[in-house]
Amino acid sequence: MINTFCKKPLWEVSQTLAAVAGGSVPADMVITHARLVNVCTHEIQEDISVAVSCGRIALVGDAAHCIGPDTLVVDAEGQYLAPGFLDGHIHVESSMMGVGEYARAVIPHGTVGIYMDPHEICNVLGLDGVKCLLEDAARTPLKAMLTTPSCVPAVPGFEDTGSFIGPDEVAETMNWKECVGLGEMMNFPGILGSSDHAHGITGATLKAGKIVTGHYSMPETGKGLNAYIASGVRCCHESTRPEDALAKMRLGMYAMFREGSAWHDLKEVARSITEHKVDSRFATLISDDTHPHTLLAQGHLDHIVRRAVEEGIDAITAIQMVTINCAQCFQMDHDLGSVAPGKCADMVLLDNLESLNVTKVWIDGDLTAENGAMTKEFAPYAYPEWATHSMHVGETITKETFAIPAKADQVTVRAIEVIPAKVGSFERHVTLTAKDGRLESDPGQDVLKTVVFERHHSTGKKGFGFVKGFGITCGAMASTVAHDAHNLLVIGTNDEDMALAANTLIQCGGGMTAVQNGKVLGTVPLPIAGLMNDKSLEEMSQLVENLEGSWKQIGCSMPSPFMTMALIPLACLPELRLTDRGLVDCTTFQFVPLEVEN
Amino acid sequence: MINTFCKKPLWEVSQTLAAVAGGSVPADMVITHARLVNVCTHEIQEDISVAVSCGRIALVGDAAHCIGPDTLVVDAEGQYLAPGFLDGHIHVESSMMGVGEYARAVIPHGTVGIYMDPHEICNVLGLDGVKCLLEDAARTPLKAMLTTPSCVPAVPGFEDTGSFIGPDEVAETMNWKECVGLGEMMNFPGILGSSDHAHGITGATLKAGKIVTGHYSMPETGKGLNAYIASGVRCCHESTRPEDALAKMRLGMYAMFREGSAWHDLKEVARSITEHKVDSRFATLISDDTHPHTLLAQGHLDHIVRRAVEEGIDAITAIQMVTINCAQCFQMDHDLGSVAPGKCADMVLLDNLESLNVTKVWIDGDLTAENGAMTKEFAPYAYPEWATHSMHVGETITKETFAIPAKADQVTVRAIEVIPAKVGSFERHVTLTAKDGRLESDPGQDVLKTVVFERHHSTGKKGFGFVKGFGITCGAMASTVAHDAHNLLVIGTNDEDMALAANTLIQCGGGMTAVQNGKVLGTVPLPIAGLMNDKSLEEMSQLVENLEGSWKQIGCSMPSPFMTMALIPLACLPELRLTDRGLVDCTTFQFVPLEVEN
Repeated sequence: MINTFCKKPLWEVSQTLAAVAGGSVPADMVITHARLVNVCTHEIQEDISVAVSCGRIALVGDAAHCIGPDTLVVDAEGQYLAPGFLDGHIHVESSMMGVGEYARAVIPHGTVGIYMDPHEICNVLGLDGVKCLLEDAARTPLKAMLTTPSCVPAVPGFEDTGSFIGPDEVAETMNWKECVGLGEMMNFPGILGSSDHAHGITGATLKAGKIVTGHYSMPETGKGLNAYIASGVRCCHESTRPEDALAKMRLGMYAMFREGSAWHDLKEVARSITEHKVDSRFATLISDDTHPHTLLAQGHLDHIVRRAVEEGIDAITAIQMVTINCAQCFQMDHDLGSVAPGKCADMVLLDNLESLNVTKVWIDGDLTAENGAMTKEFAPYAYPEWATHSMHVGETITKETFAIPAKADQVTVRAIEVIPAKVGSFERHVTLTAKDGRLESDPGQDVLKTVVFERHHSTGKKGFGFVKGFGITCGAMASTVAHDAHNLLVIGTNDEDMALAANTLIQCGGGMTAVQNGKVLGTVPLPIAGLMNDKSLEEMSQLVENLEGSWKQIGCSMPSPFMTMALIPLACLPELRLTDRGLVDCTTFQFVPLEVEN
Repeated sequence: MINTFCKKPLWEVSQTLAAVAGGSVPADMVITHARLVNVCTHEIQEDISVAVSCGRIALVGDAAHCIGPDTLVVDAEGQYLAPGFLDGHIHVESSMMGVGEYARAVIPHGTVGIYMDPHEICNVLGLDGVKCLLEDAARTPLKAMLTTPSCVPAVPGFEDTGSFIGPDEVAETMNWKECVGLGEMMNFPGILGSSDHAHGITGATLKAGKIVTGHYSMPETGKGLNAYIASGVRCCHESTRPEDALAKMRLGMYAMFREGSAWHDLKEVARSITEHKVDSRFATLISDDTHPHTLLAQGHLDHIVRRAVEEGIDAITAIQMVTINCAQCFQMDHDLGSVAPGKCADMVLLDNLESLNVTKVWIDGDLTAENGAMTKEFAPYAYPEWATHSMHVGETITKETFAIPAKADQVTVRAIEVIPAKVGSFERHVTLTAKDGRLESDPGQDVLKTVVFERHHSTGKKGFGFVKGFGITCGAMASTVAHDAHNLLVIGTNDEDMALAANTLIQCGGGMTAVQNGKVLGTVPLPIAGLMNDKSLEEMSQLVENLEGSWKQIGCSMPSPFMTMALIPLACLPELRLTDRGLVDCTTFQFVPLEVEN
């Protein structure tokens, strides 16, 4: 049991709660006349009152006797009271905001707790970076439960990251009070292959009595999935087909149905429940990655619950999926996930069960958001200097840096063809004509020079390649959000613009930028580890929108191209990827040369 | 997380399990062609195979590739495979057997784990006695999870017990590897009244991250029940009406539906599910107290599951109630309660879902029982000398010991009127005519002299009273199973037979006996703490049957009179009770004199 995420541990306040429930001590707050969404029994109970004291629920039912002269009484007449929402798997970094601004963005949507895997910042800044995120979170009312990043680097030997996580590091974090488990164990090949490293990492988590969260993205649901689950992995958010989720639930694994900004799995995966009518206690709803625009335009878990209802899941079940089911997954249901005596007073008020608009959010009994806005302020947090200065590229970048000598007049190269809004890529062989003895981008063929610079340890390593599919006609773009090592990735039609894009990000501490003809068109500065900014949701959303305009200006009409771009270095995805160490054939896991040999 | 109750902790064997699931290492056993009772999704899956290794499940589905030359293959064609059954609340002492013989009695009925509250032996022998029970259990395949007795003595100040349990003692046991929580917190008045002692005991449990189990026997489901649950009590087996159980489930408390030898709550309580169609994840089935005859004639959890089905609960739901629901109640679902990869290979095979006959039982992958009989032997265990010599009565008992001087020729006394097969009693005022200046039993009025002797510390304390309702015409009966202090209780028509009955039990180390006219008619010796015997179920059942015959012989036609008798000293039940300290008015909690004053 973990008792960190509450105002007071239950054993310190149980006498007071009993007295409040009994009527001898007045409650701090009583919510009256609510329609209770009872996630324990899957019912709506009419005209329910809830008494709160010491940040916990003292009584659910008739609470008239709990009201004293100083008790705050909140009339919820006609509205639905539900437990606060929990997101079982989330990377805060995807929002491009720190946890503080992220909290401000999601709490008004009913989110009271997140199980965060700070995988991205850990790749850049290691566990010290994770500690920053925890400090950032600690000042907020949001319950930010840590699951320790499990796969840093994602593909050892093929890229350079800022840090390394092994069994010892995982074991160390299991003693941290905020840590409730292990982040998504993406190294399922290691688990299936009985690797000491992978099992050492999951084992350190299990030994600490904490939860191993998963990432099993294969369509295979037989021996591989069984091996993975048998190794102690308790949940997985990588189902894309109903049969994936159904297989997981049948094997006692929590299937986390994902509806993020980029990955819209819910439509298909919901069918595992709607068509098969199974007990849904092993199903949860999660966001994984949510970008500023989605948070602003659609919301967070409230949006995902609405989507689940649209897909035919009844509203109470959908709410169970972001409350009690999630709490049970993490064995934290003694504190979280239900409106019941003794539990943390984390609650949301919903106008109805169709639109599911969140009108009030209480965390630990405090009104924290109302009608879409935060009502509670919290102390500022400044990331330390080393965290906001993470651009350590080992050379001065000029246009010469991008020169690729040609071995012949005509050279056939391996190009990475990206697929808009998909995670896969293809290896294409493209013939380029050398100019002045060098290989250059060929916008006519939509083939663009691409370079990844190691940016953590000033090693000067860089990998050269070509990409196809972005449609850029003139200019360059660069990003330090480049999974999972988050090195500096630059793509462009000409070396001058590429140098400008790279240097723009080096100067602003990382981020994303688009340039053209020597002019910076748009930049999203992400000075925190080159991944995040502490600006507000509205500002970040505006910056990203501006950047998307700049991308269009240089010729790219792909939706959210920065996301597709960010996967170019992710050497655990098929078929061809480019890291700071070079081109990787991700089907055979071998480095391959840029030039195709005859 | 508690990892005691498995052959190997998961982190020690996860690599092997992954290899077995993957097919590179053969399984120890593969069960083929089963109909799986999937308690995770509430489905029957046809033609399922299960691969087992290291005592855990490696794979569920198609396991053909897991079979090697030395793999034991068990064809389950046409039969139903379910998780082994878990009893969430049980006093082993009620079976009158030690844990070893109890295990032999229940495992063939599909029971693989019990959450035992050794409340009775703790009252007699303290935590040392509890340790004996754990040693007794440790040699058996039965998973005997300890919940530390919470209320020793049950009613402090009104009786003398062999030991005392306070917050410090509870905290000590929370470090024991077998301890998963706190036994039924019967002191709900203390919890509701915010008593330091009661909350100290529950608090020590919560602080250790373990489960507080409950006992809330009032029909009140408002402020009292809320106060009780708010204090951290997670489950309760004292519902007798559907509305009790429903209220508990709605408040996020696990409602344990009881069907024991004496208390048949299931018929009524099942309606909370069958009539209200609620999510039943918070419902479990438990036995609480089961006597030898019930175990022999009806079974254990298999019988209770059958009873649940008779009451209209579907078979899969009923099986969930003794498997995954119970495991989730105790937050042990990572190891127990489902047939899923990584879980302990605790499984039962059922012939069908109507008769629910258990044909095979595996615990940690070992076939432990088959067709009603144990297939696995275990080492003998001898309780230590001090545990089998617990009769410490501070005087030599003769017929003179029972003399009650009369203050007048006619005296009106308070008599306890028992109610057959119910826990309550009435206070009746009866006028007795003195004989030779003494008050004697008056069988004509069915009024019998009753004495309770302190038997733990040789204090010589004894309480005198009269009971009504047993119908004994000539003879005496005695018992050391006398809740909760388990002092020596003697009832009879004449002092000679009462002395004989008392001395018979003192000589045999405790138990139950019936005598008549100077002759012992029948005795059930219970030398272990005066509560248990290490004879087999069959022998114990025969001894009890003989004793019941003896009771009839002396004139008592009540069903199971020893149970009704055992409650006479239980000073937490209404209305009037007799302890070694005297008569207790249990409505006002005051000692009252034997004679009614005018």
